[in-house]
Amino acid sequence: MSRGDLVCLDDIVEAQRCIGTVVRRTPLLPFDLLDADARFLLKAEHTQLLGSFKIRGALNAVRQLPPDRLAAGIVAFSSGNHGKAVAFAAKELGAHATVVMPTTAPAVKVDAVRALGAQVELVAPERRDTYPHELVARTGAVLVHPFDSAAAIAGHGSIGLELLDQVPDLAAVLVPVSGGGLISGIAAAIKRVRPTVRVIGVEPELAGDAAESVRLGRRVSWPESRTYRTIADGLRASRVGELPWRHLEALVDDVVTVTEEEIVDAARQLVRSARQVVEPSGAVATAAWLHGRVAAPADGRVVAMLSGGNVAPEFLADVLSG
Amino acid sequence: MSRGDLVCLDDIVEAQRCIGTVVRRTPLLPFDLLDADARFLLKAEHTQLLGSFKIRGALNAVRQLPPDRLAAGIVAFSSGNHGKAVAFAAKELGAHATVVMPTTAPAVKVDAVRALGAQVELVAPERRDTYPHELVARTGAVLVHPFDSAAAIAGHGSIGLELLDQVPDLAAVLVPVSGGGLISGIAAAIKRVRPTVRVIGVEPELAGDAAESVRLGRRVSWPESRTYRTIADGLRASRVGELPWRHLEALVDDVVTVTEEEIVDAARQLVRSARQVVEPSGAVATAAWLHGRVAAPADGRVVAMLSGGNVAPEFLADVLSG
Repeated sequence: MSRGDLVCLDDIVEAQRCIGTVVRRTPLLPFDLLDADARFLLKAEHTQLLGSFKIRGALNAVRQLPPDRLAAGIVAFSSGNHGKAVAFAAKELGAHATVVMPTTAPAVKVDAVRALGAQVELVAPERRDTYPHELVARTGAVLVHPFDSAAAIAGHGSIGLELLDQVPDLAAVLVPVSGGGLISGIAAAIKRVRPTVRVIGVEPELAGDAAESVRLGRRVSWPESRTYRTIADGLRASRVGELPWRHLEALVDDVVTVTEEEIVDAARQLVRSARQVVEPSGAVATAAWLHGRVAAPADGRVVAMLSGGNVAPEFLADVLSG
Repeated sequence: MSRGDLVCLDDIVEAQRCIGTVVRRTPLLPFDLLDADARFLLKAEHTQLLGSFKIRGALNAVRQLPPDRLAAGIVAFSSGNHGKAVAFAAKELGAHATVVMPTTAPAVKVDAVRALGAQVELVAPERRDTYPHELVARTGAVLVHPFDSAAAIAGHGSIGLELLDQVPDLAAVLVPVSGGGLISGIAAAIKRVRPTVRVIGVEPELAGDAAESVRLGRRVSWPESRTYRTIADGLRASRVGELPWRHLEALVDDVVTVTEEEIVDAARQLVRSARQVVEPSGAVATAAWLHGRVAAPADGRVVAMLSGGNVAPEFLADVLSG
């Protein structure tokens, strides 16, 4: 990939080769166990190593670093899942990792990052974007960005290759959007091979900056005081990254939004209907389908990404009693 | 298969062909998402069509009936999952189904059977064995037995063929035991192809008739007043079937038991660690592994059957708050 270009199919095939020894090919699961046709399917990235898709991008990025850069250590900022992924990748390669997390991150996620051997620094949400850069300037460590990097996007693109292989009659794939790395990778893979497949982003209405950006045709930012209202703590990025934005403009068909109630309802229906447990961020794509935010295709199958399952037990208990 | 013999590999291959257009090849999921090696795996039959493995045996049995026998209708007795499977199979072939269920069956399972178009008759648990035969004598309908039939065992055996294909280094498979049909089929497939793979049954201690039978070398019955104490409502059969017993004697390495607390703990750990929701009966194999009831193999992978996920919401809420 030359600087400024979109991630191409070769980058994704190479990423798949690079991370394939560790990253799992996750299965597709039927949403409705009573439906013999199973036209609505779930891509089970919540059963991926570490419980979310993030390891695909992080491992691809870290494995591409030369040894002398690795020796200076790695810095990541994350609401949780990317932090776990970077901690794992650093440990695998014997590098030191510092993960900067917002003070609002669920304890379950903070503990999980620490358990993987990384040092955690908690900062106020509004310093989440600047502090990691200060750390890099001070220590010479390498910043592994969760979404605004070709390596991360190419790693996430391996999901697109799997979907093309697993669902011959794929009509549409629904993908949670925060910084935009996941949907960029999936779109980069799918649109090069089967451009008629619709790739649709889904955001919480309360953090709907990407949907607004697509509507306006320019990348907008929302204040964190707005995006931090959503229960979907993995989708609170205040704008999509610069490189993801170019992928969204070029390759993504639409970005739709779902309400908080729809997210909770989808998480509940995933338990009851599909026997799957996801975190709120992992339920938004399913919510968009169940609540009619996306038109049903004339034929072919629809896949919703279950992007992560690192859920706080209290959320799950609330969901089930609702 | 000649009368009195064990189900052979050809029967299972034929069953797989017969039911394969409807039955899903279920994935293997890692139990521990933090373990890159994933040596303990889950066979996700709780994501099978209708939410349990039962469709494999029931569909194989019903599809083998000649049209004139089908026309007289089908009778099944079931605590829930077999009833759903028979109702589905009957509907598919345009036959009438009556499902006899114990009055103790969870409402969620009774409703599910009715929703599939079958007529439900609720009887006291102690009449569960005799009433279906009265019905058959009165109406001329065909009894589709949930476990004491070569067709059911061969259908369940298709899981064994899948496991052999999905896990090249399979060392042991842990299988819930009630009437014994599931483990008979799995053992019949696996022991003919890779006899060194250990096939181990798991029962609730409170319904441990099969474990006692294996220990004594003869098939014993427990009174239903005993077996009905377990929370695992799918595993309350008071003894294994005659044909399953011959398979257990010839092909199964051991049957172990787990406590009620271990079952609930396993269901909880499946949610927290693997993001999977199962019914209590579906958690016993995992419980045996997590609580050390089965020796770890020197090498190779261990698979626990998640046999069903048709859980009452209250059970799940209890599990999570525990």
